[in-house]
Parts: sequence; structure tokens; C-alpha cells
Amino acid sequence: MPADVLEKLNLKPFESVEIGHPDVQRVAPKVHVTAGENKVVDSIEDVVKATLKDGMTISFHHHFRNGDYAFNKVMDVIIKLGYKDLTLAPSSLTGVMNDKVIEAIKKGVITNITSSGMRGSLGDFVSHGGLKNPVIFRSHGNRARSIEDGEIKIDVAFLGVPVSDPAGNANGQDGKAVFGSLGYALMDAQYADKVVLLTDNVVPYPNTPASIKQTQVDYVVKVDEIGDPDKIGSGATRFTKDPKELMIAQMVNDVIVNSPYFKQGFSFQTGSGGAALAVTRYLRESMLDKGITAAFALGGITKPTCDLLEEGLVKKVMDVQDFDKGAAASMAKNRDQQEIDASWYADPHNKGAVVNNLDVAILSALQIDTNFHVNVMTGSDGVIRGAIGGHQDAANAKMTIITAPLVRGRNATVVKNVETVVTPGDSIDVVVTERGVAVNPKRQDLIDCFKKVPSIHLVTMDELQKLAEKQVGAPKKLEYTDRTVAVVEYRDGTVIDTIKEVKD
Amino acid sequence: MPADVLEKLNLKPFESVEIGHPDVQRVAPKVHVTAGENKVVDSIEDVVKATLKDGMTISFHHHFRNGDYAFNKVMDVIIKLGYKDLTLAPSSLTGVMNDKVIEAIKKGVITNITSSGMRGSLGDFVSHGGLKNPVIFRSHGNRARSIEDGEIKIDVAFLGVPVSDPAGNANGQDGKAVFGSLGYALMDAQYADKVVLLTDNVVPYPNTPASIKQTQVDYVVKVDEIGDPDKIGSGATRFTKDPKELMIAQMVNDVIVNSPYFKQGFSFQTGSGGAALAVTRYLRESMLDKGITAAFALGGITKPTCDLLEEGLVKKVMDVQDFDKGAAASMAKNRDQQEIDASWYADPHNKGAVVNNLDVAILSALQIDTNFHVNVMTGSDGVIRGAIGGHQDAANAKMTIITAPLVRGRNATVVKNVETVVTPGDSIDVVVTERGVAVNPKRQDLIDCFKKVPSIHLVTMDELQKLAEKQVGAPKKLEYTDRTVAVVEYRDGTVIDTIKEVKD
Repeated sequence: MPADVLEKLNLKPFESVEIGHPDVQRVAPKVHVTAGENKVVDSIEDVVKATLKDGMTISFHHHFRNGDYAFNKVMDVIIKLGYKDLTLAPSSLTGVMNDKVIEAIKKGVITNITSSGMRGSLGDFVSHGGLKNPVIFRSHGNRARSIEDGEIKIDVAFLGVPVSDPAGNANGQDGKAVFGSLGYALMDAQYADKVVLLTDNVVPYPNTPASIKQTQVDYVVKVDEIGDPDKIGSGATRFTKDPKELMIAQMVNDVIVNSPYFKQGFSFQTGSGGAALAVTRYLRESMLDKGITAAFALGGITKPTCDLLEEGLVKKVMDVQDFDKGAAASMAKNRDQQEIDASWYADPHNKGAVVNNLDVAILSALQIDTNFHVNVMTGSDGVIRGAIGGHQDAANAKMTIITAPLVRGRNATVVKNVETVVTPGDSIDVVVTERGVAVNPKRQDLIDCFKKVPSIHLVTMDELQKLAEKQVGAPKKLEYTDRTVAVVEYRDGTVIDTIKEVKD
Repeated sequence: MPADVLEKLNLKPFESVEIGHPDVQRVAPKVHVTAGENKVVDSIEDVVKATLKDGMTISFHHHFRNGDYAFNKVMDVIIKLGYKDLTLAPSSLTGVMNDKVIEAIKKGVITNITSSGMRGSLGDFVSHGGLKNPVIFRSHGNRARSIEDGEIKIDVAFLGVPVSDPAGNANGQDGKAVFGSLGYALMDAQYADKVVLLTDNVVPYPNTPASIKQTQVDYVVKVDEIGDPDKIGSGATRFTKDPKELMIAQMVNDVIVNSPYFKQGFSFQTGSGGAALAVTRYLRESMLDKGITAAFALGGITKPTCDLLEEGLVKKVMDVQDFDKGAAASMAKNRDQQEIDASWYADPHNKGAVVNNLDVAILSALQIDTNFHVNVMTGSDGVIRGAIGGHQDAANAKMTIITAPLVRGRNATVVKNVETVVTPGDSIDVVVTERGVAVNPKRQDLIDCFKKVPSIHLVTMDELQKLAEKQVGAPKKLEYTDRTVAVVEYRDGTVIDTIKEVKD
């Protein structure tokens, strides 16, 4: 994006993964004082009318994932009432919200969006120029920062919860549609001027633990059903049987175990998905073998990680989000599974977030290039189909490992230049593919470690890129218009890349 | 205090116990960004030099009560370094801090104080004009309000804790000097620009539960000992054997049980002290008799209340402070003993605090007058020897009961006019003495209830006052100078009374 455009949007270009030591004046909400004994109302429409004005910023969380009923229930009312020019600022957008967002954009109800990501029809719609103003993509830590610094000022937050009392004391741990940690939504509850809870489960006062507190809540809207428990996360945990994924997982384990970070009291973050779950399984065996326990596991949490907690191999689980039913259910049972908000998780403009104490992060990639830059946002066709999530944030770990198959179908994963830079190469240390392990040349210490290990086949990114190109050919040059459809921020709020409208 | 003086101090006179529905802009701290992995330092002096400037506002909490070592350790350094013109804004001041506060005042280090109260030598010193500027006394809920609204802007908070990790994740539940809930200190941790923890117990990262979070903490100072466990609260709980106290407690129980509030899911707050503990014992028997359980117990918590929780007679304990070792130890064991901060407890400028949902509050009094006004701040000699605590806040309950002996020694407790109005008569419903029960004439509904109960001897405040006067004579008229030594705020920040310098 040209410098003058950046300036107009009050944005600065990305410079460094170093955050430095700025002094930041935090912001705070405006509170309408009430006795607040009973905030239960039946009508979403009444609440929307009482709180929302044209041009305001509204927010939602995505903890229900594809089981979310809250977003569509509220947006239906907002669209029906004919609001205009709203900014949508959810923690992220899941597929179940796509149709409603597109409808709202087409009707002029939503004219600005900031989100962790978008996929499917909505990503396609935005990539084809469907939204006039550029979307701003922010990581979970960056969203926390932006809310705390006032860059995102939420006027009304609509937050679905599986349980609340009449005064608004709520959590994600009880009821039918349990999702566990309310981590991302805790930012909205703390900083929005108006906080509206939606729930199908109003229990007697006082409901504890109160992840969201009555002091933060203006209304509790009782609805028939707030979510579909079967679609909140994957149900039973299944390990991958894909030999390529298993090979990569085994190699990730070898990398961790042979790194200087695998020692008593280490810490790690894995994601979801087959390979990540398999890594957890291999890691468990290595920890048992070597008699090593982890001080904490971080991140989006899965059942296998909670099992390590139960087993005593992990002392604490720092939980900003639960990826499956088992992890969600575990939070209510195990006091060492600590709910953390997105600021505590990863706000870089902080007195220290948990990611700063992270030894090992295992992250995925849609593309990674020979400069170690990672793209988790656009596909090989240039279309938006991803989310930053905590990628930039967890990459802050002492050793950040990207796992990726060399190619996916007919498209190279390892490329000369990623379509969109999301996480800068400076924060990536190791890339693990089924054809070998590439270490960032900045990390000669890790290269020295791994070259002594027979099972680790060290390669360069150039070699991997050439192997990929040999397999599937050079990627064709994509065609874009001049129009910017999205801005990708780095976690400190600088602009690390922009996404252009694709030409059909 | 004359209107022009009030205006100069930007204070408004008390008007009503009704809080209304103001819109309040909250404030937020300034954050100095750091990676924050390890904040442990050895020297209080280095931290004071790095954070404190002349004229700033400093704060402390009083959860260690008379076992506190943090206050004197820090004030010794501040006095030694010769700071001037500081405002001292602790949650309250306990006797163990008195000598140091007086020394700091005499040396010009402290020139302003706001506190819940003060006793002993410090109260005497201030009442005799020892501090140039008037002290501002605020209830716990009012302190929370003032911090959240920006009336109290804490520059540096020095908070002693029995356990922290190197990043500042801390609670009051582990270590040698355990005090349980960190309720009051949570305000300082959230709103102060600089937060300094002091502890004798640094444990591996991450320490959970984290009542105070690493995101809030700038420094963790390691000290030899942070508190004397034996002086934090009363040790073993002993019920009173004083026949007068037992009679009053029995009568309080009769009042509660025969009120419309004694029903399934009711709620109550009792204080500490012999009579309050005895009330809890009688109430337990009544609850068992009638098969009634309480939704929650609130307030400064004692072991007998935690026993009710264990027994299932109370569903939740909402805990802003623990008064004894048993209650402090219980918090780590029982997840239904919920730590609440002072805002959640009682900030009147809120979207609802727990006190708003309170059915029955049992409170004490140094004096109570025929208008039901209560004094918990000055003795019958006019000298400051008390604390508002949560008195004004809990008096917000649907039925507020004051327990008081008719006389104490040679001084009447029930008087024509209290020396200092702290809690206005409008929020007091019932007064229980050993000579009878007086009900506020505004509560004809309660009078109608109680007059059917043979065991409740209804009297008027006039009758009680005359009985007291007959016993100990009319109180002698106290002599004061014109100088105001303290301002007593109502919980909404208006001025309900002032305290004058006593004449010797």
C-alpha cells in the first residue's frame, strides 16, 4: 500500500518484530449506572434499539465456532431494523456467519470489518471487492492491543454464553452449549460501552465462576438456543493416519526433543488439526521417556493437552480458547486449566503476556517462502481463506516451528514469495516438511544442535522450494486489480501486507 | 463544612441514598510496555526510585491486617529517600502501620490521606490536627468507585502477596502468610500506573489462580518475610460467651427468621466479632430447622460462614476479604468461595454490585441516633477510632440490621445525635439492642411482621435513647475547633459529614 494511503488510514508500515518499550495510555468504557439486579429481557430487538446507533462498532466472539447461533440471531435483527454503516469487530468470523455478513454488507449495514480472518464465501466475496473499505486483519493479541489502546472502540458487544445469572455473571463452562474458555470475549466484556449477553440458560444468582462479571453487563437476553453443541468443536479426538502428517509430527518431536528448550519446566503451544495432535502424542512419549514435565501448555487447547495436565506431564494449561469438547469440558473440572483473556495471552503492548514466556510454538502455514515469511491468510489463488489467529503472537516463542507439507494438491506450500506476508520470517526458527527440516540461518545455534542428530534431515528453504517446484511446477503469477481489499496488521499495529482484489 | 469549602474541594453535599443512573466515563492506567518475563528485584529502594516522584499518590492494601510487613518496609525506604507531599491511598490503615504513617506525616512525606478508616495513635494524631489537609474517608465501595472514576489516581501501588511468580501472577491463597481474598487490592492492580508486588515466596511461572495478573505488574520485590501469619486474622474462632452479645445475636436471628427475606435462596452479610459469629451460629440452626438454604453469603468472610458453605447451607461465598485464618485457607479448597474485587462487591457507580442483591446485612455501630444515623468512625470523645469499611455499602441491603449494646461502659451507644454521620438513617431498617428492637418507621411492613412475634420486643429509638441516658447520663457536649480534620464521604462521593479537630 502506498505511503500516502497508509498515512491517510493512520497506519504505519511494519518495521520489526521487536516491540520495544512504548508507554501506552489504556482506554476505558463509559458505564451507565444501574442497580443491575435483574437484566433479563426477552427481545433482542428491544436491546438493539436501546443500544445501537448508525455508524457504531459492534462485536461478537467466535468461541461457539460453527455452532454459533448468537451472531445470526442478532444480525437478523440489526439488518431488519435497517441500521447503516456499522463496523463489525468480532474476535473472528466462522463459516456459519458468512451468509449473514455478506447480506449485511450488500445492504449497507456493515461497511467496515476487522477480524482475525475469514473463510469460504465471505473470503471470496471480499477478495472480489464485495466490501468497499479494506478489512483490517488482526491477530488475537493485536485485537486485544487495539481494544486496550482504543484503536478498536466497541460500542456494543453481543456475547453468547452457555450460562448466565440474571445479573450477567457468566462463563463458558456450564449449560448445553459449553465451549470452555471465554478468553477472546473477555476483552469485549471489559472494554465495550454496552455489553449484551445472550444465553439459553439463566441460572440463579450468583453464577460462579464469573468469567464475565455482572459489573460489565447491561442486558441478558434469554433465547431458545444459543448454540449447537455438536458444531462447537470437533467431538472425539482422532489422531491422523496420514503418513505424511505422521512423519512431520514425528520430525517436529525430534526437533523439540533435540533443542535446548526441551528441559524440566519447558512450555509449548500446539494448534489443532491432525498433525498438531500427533505432535502432542509423540511429545508425551518423549516426556515420559526423559522424565521431563512442562510448566505450561498454551493456546487454543485440545483434549490431548488436557490429558497431559491430568497425567501431571503438564503443570498448567493456559487457556484462551478450547478447540474441542474434551478441552471445553475439562476447564470446569481441573483448576489448573486457567482461563486467560486475549490480553494476558498475547497483547504485545503489555507488561508481559504469556506468549513472551513460551519456549516452543508449533504453527501451520498456507504458504512459507525462502525468507521464512508465512502466509496463513490467502490461498494459492490469492483469495482470502484463513485467519491470523494467534500465529504472529505465538511466533514470539523462543523456538517457532512451522509444519507444512511441501505441496498441497497441485500447489506448492514452500514458495519463493508468499502471496501475503502474515508472520515475518524474523520470528520463524524452524520449518518442518516431509522432505526435511529447514532452520532459519539466524539460528546457527539450532543448526549446530540439529546437525548432530541423525534423524533430522537438514535442508535449506531454497532446496525445499526447488523440490516443491519440481513436483508441481512454478506457481502461476496471480492477477490482481489495484484495489486494496484488506490490510494485514502485524501484532503491534503496523501494516505488514495488503491484500488486493483478485481478477477473475 | 461550609458550601464554599466544599466547592473548593470539588465536593458535593450528601443528598440521598439513591444512586440514580449517571453515565460514568471510567479511567485506565498508563502502561509501560515490557516483555515482562522476569520482574524479580531485590531492592525496594531501586523500585521506589524507578517509580516514585514527589507529589504522587501511593497505595497499599490491608489484607494482612496487623500481620502486615509490606507497608512499613516500603514506607521506611520512602521516608529515608526524603520524598515529599505524597498522597496515601490505601484500602485501609491497620494499627501496625500507625507509627510509620505518623512519622511520614511529621516529615512532610505524606500530606494527604484517603482511607476506609484509622484507629489508635493515628486516629488520635489526626483528630488533634496532626495532618494539615483533611483526610477523606471512603467506604470500600466508594474507594472502588473513586479509583474507577479517576478521583483517586494511583501512581504506584505497593501490594504485598504471599505468593507470586517472576512475572507477577499472584494470589493470596498460597505461601506462609495466606490471607485469602485479594479483593481490595485488585482495584489497585487494575488501575495503578505502576504496580509493585512484594513477596517472600516466588514460585515457578505460571502461578495460578492469578488474582493479580502479570499484565498488571511492573516489579516483583523479593523480601525475607512479607507478613506475620499469626496476626493476619483471628486464629481459632471463638464464639462469644458474653450474655449480652448472645442475647443480641439471638434477637438478630429472630428478626431475620421472621422477616419476609428468610426464604429459599436468600442472602446475607455478617461482619466479624463475637456477636456476628454468634448470629451465624443461630442462623445455621434456623436454616436447618426450616430447610432453607442461602444463595450466597457476602462480605468479609469468617470460618463459620465457610463452614455453612461446606455444609451446603450456603451455595456461594462472595469473598472480598477474609477475617480469619479458616476463611483464608478455605478459598483455595472450595471453588464456590468466589474472590470478588471491591468494584464487584460494592461500587455504586456500576452496572450492579453484589451488595445490590443482598437481602440481609448485619452491621455494627459505635453510635446510632434517633434518626437511625450510624457512626462507625468517631468515639464518644469525638476522636477518630474506626473505619467505614463496607458499612455504607452493605446498608444497601433490603433489610439492614444494626446490632449494638445500649451502652458501652459509661457511654451511650444509642444517642440523640451521632458525633459523625457515616451511614444515613435512610438505609437502616432495624436496630437490635439487648433492651429491644427498633424498626425504622419507614419500614411499616417490617413493624407489621415483627409485632406478631412474641419474642421480638419492639421499641422506638427514642425509648432506647432514653433508656441509655437513664443508665449513663446525657453525653457531655464535646468541644472542637473550627478546623476540619477529615471529610466523610457517602458511597457516591458526596460529603455526608466532616470531623473537626478535638479540643483537649
